[in-house]
Amino acid sequence: MAMTVLSNIVISARVRRSPFFAATQRYGCKAYSVYNHMYMPLYYQSPEADYWHLVNGVTLWDVAVERQVEIVGPDAARFVQLLSPRDLSNCAVGQCKYLLMTDETGGILNDPVLLKLAEDRYWLSLADSDVLLWAKGVAYFGNYDVEIFEPDVSPLQLQGPLAAAVGEALFGSALNDLKYFWFAEFELAGMPLIVSRTGWSGERGYEIYLQNGDDGDRLWETIMEAGNPHGIAPATPSAIRRIEGGLLSYGADMNLDNNPYEMNLGRLVDLDQEADFIGKAALARIKKAGITRRLVGLAVEGGAAAVPSLERAAITCDGAPAGRITSAVYSPSLEQTIALALVPLAQSGEGSVLTVESDVVPLSAKVSPLPFVSRKTV
Amino acid sequence: MAMTVLSNIVISARVRRSPFFAATQRYGCKAYSVYNHMYMPLYYQSPEADYWHLVNGVTLWDVAVERQVEIVGPDAARFVQLLSPRDLSNCAVGQCKYLLMTDETGGILNDPVLLKLAEDRYWLSLADSDVLLWAKGVAYFGNYDVEIFEPDVSPLQLQGPLAAAVGEALFGSALNDLKYFWFAEFELAGMPLIVSRTGWSGERGYEIYLQNGDDGDRLWETIMEAGNPHGIAPATPSAIRRIEGGLLSYGADMNLDNNPYEMNLGRLVDLDQEADFIGKAALARIKKAGITRRLVGLAVEGGAAAVPSLERAAITCDGAPAGRITSAVYSPSLEQTIALALVPLAQSGEGSVLTVESDVVPLSAKVSPLPFVSRKTV
Repeated sequence: MAMTVLSNIVISARVRRSPFFAATQRYGCKAYSVYNHMYMPLYYQSPEADYWHLVNGVTLWDVAVERQVEIVGPDAARFVQLLSPRDLSNCAVGQCKYLLMTDETGGILNDPVLLKLAEDRYWLSLADSDVLLWAKGVAYFGNYDVEIFEPDVSPLQLQGPLAAAVGEALFGSALNDLKYFWFAEFELAGMPLIVSRTGWSGERGYEIYLQNGDDGDRLWETIMEAGNPHGIAPATPSAIRRIEGGLLSYGADMNLDNNPYEMNLGRLVDLDQEADFIGKAALARIKKAGITRRLVGLAVEGGAAAVPSLERAAITCDGAPAGRITSAVYSPSLEQTIALALVPLAQSGEGSVLTVESDVVPLSAKVSPLPFVSRKTV
Repeated sequence: MAMTVLSNIVISARVRRSPFFAATQRYGCKAYSVYNHMYMPLYYQSPEADYWHLVNGVTLWDVAVERQVEIVGPDAARFVQLLSPRDLSNCAVGQCKYLLMTDETGGILNDPVLLKLAEDRYWLSLADSDVLLWAKGVAYFGNYDVEIFEPDVSPLQLQGPLAAAVGEALFGSALNDLKYFWFAEFELAGMPLIVSRTGWSGERGYEIYLQNGDDGDRLWETIMEAGNPHGIAPATPSAIRRIEGGLLSYGADMNLDNNPYEMNLGRLVDLDQEADFIGKAALARIKKAGITRRLVGLAVEGGAAAVPSLERAAITCDGAPAGRITSAVYSPSLEQTIALALVPLAQSGEGSVLTVESDVVPLSAKVSPLPFVSRKTV
């Protein structure tokens, strides 16, 4: 993400505030974007300083913009399966699943984390698109006995190598039993919470789901207090760390025009399952025909100064069009500008040398293995 | 809208840029928000200065965030009717209709302007929600022969009392034949355009729909050149003028929790039509039972300085809860802080005196007739 300041952002009643919004202001959040019709914090000290807190210590993020869609009722399991290509027949109560949602053409609508709260009750923890409208629309003529709504649920993320220590201080040693991509119910100062061992950082971490928007300040401060001995800092989803980790951002790296295979996410498509899902026939056709382009990592010359000119920049190979950048950032760990890009299959092999047609000057780029930085002790 | 500066906004590849984005930067746009996953310009000189240009002269707005959903095919008319409570059986080709879209509970999903391009082809020009996902979702199990997609269409608004003169300079005197809420096809410097006599200002004005995103700069500059002799200025949807005019903003004044009747928009619900539409049974029940709350205008004491403290402020009446503010602004024409508010029916009568529990100090407010300022020579 190019951290070029574009303008002031102005408060508007049209855009919703998170239950943690006042806390983010109090803690000095300097920039916001808008995500699922809600203000999303972008950084506190600086994107780089926040990154170092994340990778060296522990950070607390307001990610209430990850709105939940709750699906509950006798047909909930069947309906949730309809919405996703991933085989969920083995998903247990207490388990999370990263999944894609696709339309009838196999195009990606969202990439939520699913939480199975009960045999007949699920949350979809969303990226930035109105899945509530999609799910309600599908259900309108569908013959499913389900209720679909946005509950009063707002997640925080506690991320970084010291997240386990802060989590234990808050919730006791029982938290250590939580396996990766599982969740459990906890209580904190009388607040009922869901805590999952998930996150968008490639570091050890948890998501903590507040279930009463009035308690936002109290939950934030309770966690900050427990984190103080460990040097906790407020931070946000880190563009640097997620691109290092090869984690995709819906809206930047993929959208309705992309299929899972070209995103290297074919593992999330189970065509052999008995159940039908939206996009199954189209995805079978795409798989059979083979993809024509692929998301790759790029190491780009030019250092941090080049990043602002890389936003959605065109790529060429020997003068011919060869796709475009989808995300770019300077990695202070790798001391290298890194990017994600959608390129023709012929140019997607590791070591391919391409040219990024930045606004300023053409830059050389080399296709690099993903992730740039491996997932750590998550 | 409280124009308090919240933070910097930072460029991110996740948020789309309008075809006019470069022009808005060149012309000095100072603040943006995000609307339909795209940067939306908020003001140039200042909200007040932009307002005076709008009401005294002529202004050009980048409203490419009004994304279009195109619905085309043999069943398009029947499908569009399904999506809206307004009877569209008398809508002619070339006509625009302001309409609501409701879910099965009668809750409002969006309030687009419909353009009937042909008997089998429509655009929905959207407020801020993913109607593309809703429409595609409904169609998934619905038995309608339609295609639904987002076309490459980006509107500008040309608004203000001198808009007619600039429009005539651009398109000739034929433009004067265009009736309110009708549109026609025009060509400008080789660019095919749709021009409608519509807008979100309560002033005379047009919307100009670009159909090739690559021509954004050229269209913007062509209009600016024709407007120069008339003192044209870049501006944006004016929170001041739209609240004066009683025009609602989706996401601020209404959302899925609101029905058309409590928004004073019952005229957009035709329960007696033969055709079925989504929400018909629920809206019949709501109409029969009667509404319990209503959107009203409020004249609030405290002047411009009070506005930032009014965002979504609670309202009381004799100490008891009595709804909340949905939008507030200082009107320099009326020299009065004005607001829209959702209040209990018992408190919604003209002249009711209520208390706004602002962050700072309780403020007295009086229910006032809407619009605050009548529609002018549109």
